[in-house]
Amino acid sequence: MTTRHPLPIGLIGAGRMGSFHAETLARRLPGVRLAAIADPAPGAARGLGDRLGGTTAYTEIAELLADPGIEAVVIATPARTHAGLVEAAARAGKAVYCEKPMAVTLDEADRAIAAAADAGVPLQVGFNRRYDTGFHAAHEKIRAGAIGTPQLLRSLTRDPKPADPGRIPPWTIFLETLIHDFDTLHHLNPGAAPVEVFAFADALVRPDFKDRGLLDTAVVTIRFDNGALATAEANFQAVYGYDVRGEVFGSAGMLTMGDIRRGHLTAYGPDGIAADCVTYDQDLFHDAYVAELADFTECVRTGRAPSVTGQDARAALSVALAAIESVTTGGPVRVGGIAA
Amino acid sequence: MTTRHPLPIGLIGAGRMGSFHAETLARRLPGVRLAAIADPAPGAARGLGDRLGGTTAYTEIAELLADPGIEAVVIATPARTHAGLVEAAARAGKAVYCEKPMAVTLDEADRAIAAAADAGVPLQVGFNRRYDTGFHAAHEKIRAGAIGTPQLLRSLTRDPKPADPGRIPPWTIFLETLIHDFDTLHHLNPGAAPVEVFAFADALVRPDFKDRGLLDTAVVTIRFDNGALATAEANFQAVYGYDVRGEVFGSAGMLTMGDIRRGHLTAYGPDGIAADCVTYDQDLFHDAYVAELADFTECVRTGRAPSVTGQDARAALSVALAAIESVTTGGPVRVGGIAA
Amino acid sequence: MTTRHPLPIGLIGAGRMGSFHAETLARRLPGVRLAAIADPAPGAARGLGDRLGGTTAYTEIAELLADPGIEAVVIATPARTHAGLVEAAARAGKAVYCEKPMAVTLDEADRAIAAAADAGVPLQVGFNRRYDTGFHAAHEKIRAGAIGTPQLLRSLTRDPKPADPGRIPPWTIFLETLIHDFDTLHHLNPGAAPVEVFAFADALVRPDFKDRGLLDTAVVTIRFDNGALATAEANFQAVYGYDVRGEVFGSAGMLTMGDIRRGHLTAYGPDGIAADCVTYDQDLFHDAYVAELADFTECVRTGRAPSVTGQDARAALSVALAAIESVTTGGPVRVGGIAA
Amino acid sequence: MTTRHPLPIGLIGAGRMGSFHAETLARRLPGVRLAAIADPAPGAARGLGDRLGGTTAYTEIAELLADPGIEAVVIATPARTHAGLVEAAARAGKAVYCEKPMAVTLDEADRAIAAAADAGVPLQVGFNRRYDTGFHAAHEKIRAGAIGTPQLLRSLTRDPKPADPGRIPPWTIFLETLIHDFDTLHHLNPGAAPVEVFAFADALVRPDFKDRGLLDTAVVTIRFDNGALATAEANFQAVYGYDVRGEVFGSAGMLTMGDIRRGHLTAYGPDGIAADCVTYDQDLFHDAYVAELADFTECVRTGRAPSVTGQDARAALSVALAAIESVTTGGPVRVGGIAA
Repeated sequence: MTTRHPLPIGLIGAGRMGSFHAETLARRLPGVRLAAIADPAPGAARGLGDRLGGTTAYTEIAELLADPGIEAVVIATPARTHAGLVEAAARAGKAVYCEKPMAVTLDEADRAIAAAADAGVPLQVGFNRRYDTGFHAAHEKIRAGAIGTPQLLRSLTRDPKPADPGRIPPWTIFLETLIHDFDTLHHLNPGAAPVEVFAFADALVRPDFKDRGLLDTAVVTIRFDNGALATAEANFQAVYGYDVRGEVFGSAGMLTMGDIRRGHLTAYGPDGIAADCVTYDQDLFHDAYVAELADFTECVRTGRAPSVTGQDARAALSVALAAIESVTTGGPVRVGGIAA
Repeated sequence: MTTRHPLPIGLIGAGRMGSFHAETLARRLPGVRLAAIADPAPGAARGLGDRLGGTTAYTEIAELLADPGIEAVVIATPARTHAGLVEAAARAGKAVYCEKPMAVTLDEADRAIAAAADAGVPLQVGFNRRYDTGFHAAHEKIRAGAIGTPQLLRSLTRDPKPADPGRIPPWTIFLETLIHDFDTLHHLNPGAAPVEVFAFADALVRPDFKDRGLLDTAVVTIRFDNGALATAEANFQAVYGYDVRGEVFGSAGMLTMGDIRRGHLTAYGPDGIAADCVTYDQDLFHDAYVAELADFTECVRTGRAPSVTGQDARAALSVALAAIESVTTGGPVRVGGIAA
Repeated sequence: MTTRHPLPIGLIGAGRMGSFHAETLARRLPGVRLAAIADPAPGAARGLGDRLGGTTAYTEIAELLADPGIEAVVIATPARTHAGLVEAAARAGKAVYCEKPMAVTLDEADRAIAAAADAGVPLQVGFNRRYDTGFHAAHEKIRAGAIGTPQLLRSLTRDPKPADPGRIPPWTIFLETLIHDFDTLHHLNPGAAPVEVFAFADALVRPDFKDRGLLDTAVVTIRFDNGALATAEANFQAVYGYDVRGEVFGSAGMLTMGDIRRGHLTAYGPDGIAADCVTYDQDLFHDAYVAELADFTECVRTGRAPSVTGQDARAALSVALAAIESVTTGGPVRVGGIAA
Repeated sequence: MTTRHPLPIGLIGAGRMGSFHAETLARRLPGVRLAAIADPAPGAARGLGDRLGGTTAYTEIAELLADPGIEAVVIATPARTHAGLVEAAARAGKAVYCEKPMAVTLDEADRAIAAAADAGVPLQVGFNRRYDTGFHAAHEKIRAGAIGTPQLLRSLTRDPKPADPGRIPPWTIFLETLIHDFDTLHHLNPGAAPVEVFAFADALVRPDFKDRGLLDTAVVTIRFDNGALATAEANFQAVYGYDVRGEVFGSAGMLTMGDIRRGHLTAYGPDGIAADCVTYDQDLFHDAYVAELADFTECVRTGRAPSVTGQDARAALSVALAAIESVTTGGPVRVGGIAA
């Protein structure tokens, strides 16, 4: 596939994440052109496109997919629509970058993966932490054997505040938040597959929404087939900021990742030592978001396979679904059929 | 009870922990006298006593318990003997400090607690981390509401290297190592009781001993009756040193504790930044070990009730036993009958 | 002055710093266009322009200054040429951003400042550390009184390795390196002026170049008119990386700034704790370089006065010249005529 | 010299520092006996001795020196009396430990050193930071070549609050506070001697006492004969606590020392990250104070020469006197005759 230069990309979804990706595509990536934006909300695509200059706006996603001037799409719509859009975009012959989670059922995931394979288009999934310099360097070191065999892992995500509980579907904490941690744990335990999952979860931040199935606090333990034991932890309201950390303990050492501290100013006064916390995810992972789209566009341009694949998305989803089942049944759940 | 001055204390057990306590009693605590040491191993009590000067040595523990010149005992024998010695010492009218675990069955624990109550003697248990300045200050802050209601807790213990696997009884990781973490989690979630436990454990450090029931790596998750979810984690071989850390995340903030770093020298060179790790537990908790014995002797002297009680030991044991049952059955286990 | 959109900017100097600014102007700043590049070195402007796409290239700086399509210039040539170019650019009616040092004599500085004033064009100087989030926040806090009156200040610069000693003019360490620290100390002690300077300097990195007047290690102490005592320190070869730090101690507290650590990955192994150092200045101050050009272009666009002025450059230069005189005479030197 | 066991030591001076040493001698050092205390203040020696139990009390220092039951003395009186007491104690045949500064003139220093040499008694000086684990390890690493040749050094002391200004003699900041830093800089630049000193000093904390010669803020720069440039910095009122830090930058790396942080509890809340500061010197250097007396008593017992000598005290004093002269004359001052 020969690609045009600059590469014309269509963005699907002009919400918070979509707007951020739009800016990256329009301004931060050389060799890329944000050619079109589609969003069913009236005026959303148009408004975003106008702010960034010279972008076609669609309210019908199908029109963007039918646009022959678009070579690749970035999907940043609500989670439940992802898999269907991956399928549609792949069938339309577009290279596909899809925000996490790529799918919310294994069937959906399989169809999306198959569609991309059938169409021969690259499919990359938005596990942006893999592109964060700290988590990335950890992966490299672990692969190089720097800490021996992983034995205990931890990944956690704490958001500064919950989204409007009325708009969060049930199981969001597993399917949209912890999905990152499940991917991180899989990625930082290279060559191993999760085999068993146990989860505790509760509505501690907003107990008033518990009867609607909204859970905002969870601890998931995972046993991998190389013996490693892992913990994933999430909470929707960390009053101190946005907290994403990782830890991998192995037979030959330990690595820790994560940066709660914002900036490098430290204050010392009568009350002791003080420093600021990171408060917003697009700040914490700003460079990682840019790096993952840069990597995606390079895959499109060079024909190289993406480094974060539909199979990776499926693996993380398998753990999320097992965790949901564990919460539902109250017992541990086997995870099946995940290739390491 | 009027006590003599200096307070005459008898030490039972002249092994590693006993030797450390002996030195504290002989040299670091004003108002205290190490009056006698008992250890069945020939020469052990005598050798230790000679090094410290002027201490009676017994090879029969019963003789020490019968010695009317002894007002209080410090029990630092192998774990399986603790509860029986607590009972015997209490019946002999001695104030009792007992190393953790105080007991390895709930029945034993109940008998030990009852014996001390019947005899009207103080009974304190060696959860030394409660006396570490960081963990202690965390407890004070949490009680004062500084982080609101605890929602997610973590406590971990990683030893630098395993004891001789041939000499470790099965379930040691739960009964002797994680017992500290179970107590920490209970202590840092004041007023709450554990209700459900799930554990994964394995022999990752010494897989060759797995068929003898020796487990060296474990992750335990605990649900408390205030909704808080906790994780306790242990491993017997951290190549970088002795790693004890805690984290309590609450509705109004987070506290972290633990000090892997030894000292305050930092080196910067072509390979980056380097610092030393703490490598030995008596170094990490040196001051805490002294503080707990100081607190114990003050209880004896003043009649004040100990701040780490037999009930605390029983609560931690309940979690340990539930974790063992969880590993055995493969499912979550309810914890019953623990007063907050 | 009404400005065109996007603002057409001409870059003078296509060396290391110029290339970095070129990329910022071409790609990272919305509302800006890198319209032309001038560099006397054959092919330098053309090569850089081609890499970035669609930029006019000049080998005669005068041609760029005569280009009516250029509204503002960024001067990134060798230090000794700065002041003359500021004058020429101002006379040509261009808004001027000039890399530090703006001048190497006070006369030059005065002429450059006067030229910009006469022409009514904004003149901004490249003290990029003022745009670093940590140093910037420190300034804000100090102005707000957070640490009371500054009493002891420190600023240091250590470069990873020296430039080719054969190509460094004498006094470079004061005029081009420590000039940053002199500005930082002035900026973090708001409202105060330096009154006396004493300097020690030596050739410790390359003693073989000492007889050619090349100094690579210096410590400068400065007394300010509010009593504050400050230290500026520089060295040309820090084997561990690029080290820029600041410290301000005041009557009500202390602030520290500076980030030797690169990233947030920490490794723990048998040799202790390890982390990486920052090794390259454009990495450390990447965002600050972008922010200062964004600020400059906003000044051009809005007519607002620059926040880092020719007077700031002159103040830092006064301290540099006093330090040079101190090294030459071996005694302390009074600094005259600097407005706070 | 054969010494008695436990070694009978006499303490001279029952003030703040003396009381601390008394407790160390009485309780923390095996093989040592606090045999007598002398203090001219009525009741001071008696009160302290009674608290510690069984110690002879003198109000005449001469009586203690004449006591044949005393083998060694610890001098912890006001600074101006030290040298005379060292002389007297040495003449009385006692091994001598003297708090810093050992002397406040070079003549005094020489007489004290000579007296100890003539009497053949060990003379150790209280530069306790050499016994702090961090500073000690830095010294070892530097001697082993870990950072190559030292090029830039820094040592600072900031006290939490000034002593009663009415009771501080002039030049205290140099003779009693910075004397520590001068020793640290000398010690961390092994084999090198200070050759030139320049000092700025002022009364910024208590300007109302400036006309009485009380200075509370100082920055001293020192040039060593190996080219290294050093800064010593002091202030009498750090509102955040007790701040002692060091930094040595060399041709092959850098070391930093110093621990402003108290404990290992970190709090994260809506206002960011918070931790406590060290606030009191006997806390910060508690272990170092004990270690130096342990080292001294070992010297007495074994006949080994002390590791912190009268010559070390003289070297630090030379720098202090040069700094005082620099403040007086306003210019740099040569330091003469210091053996490395």
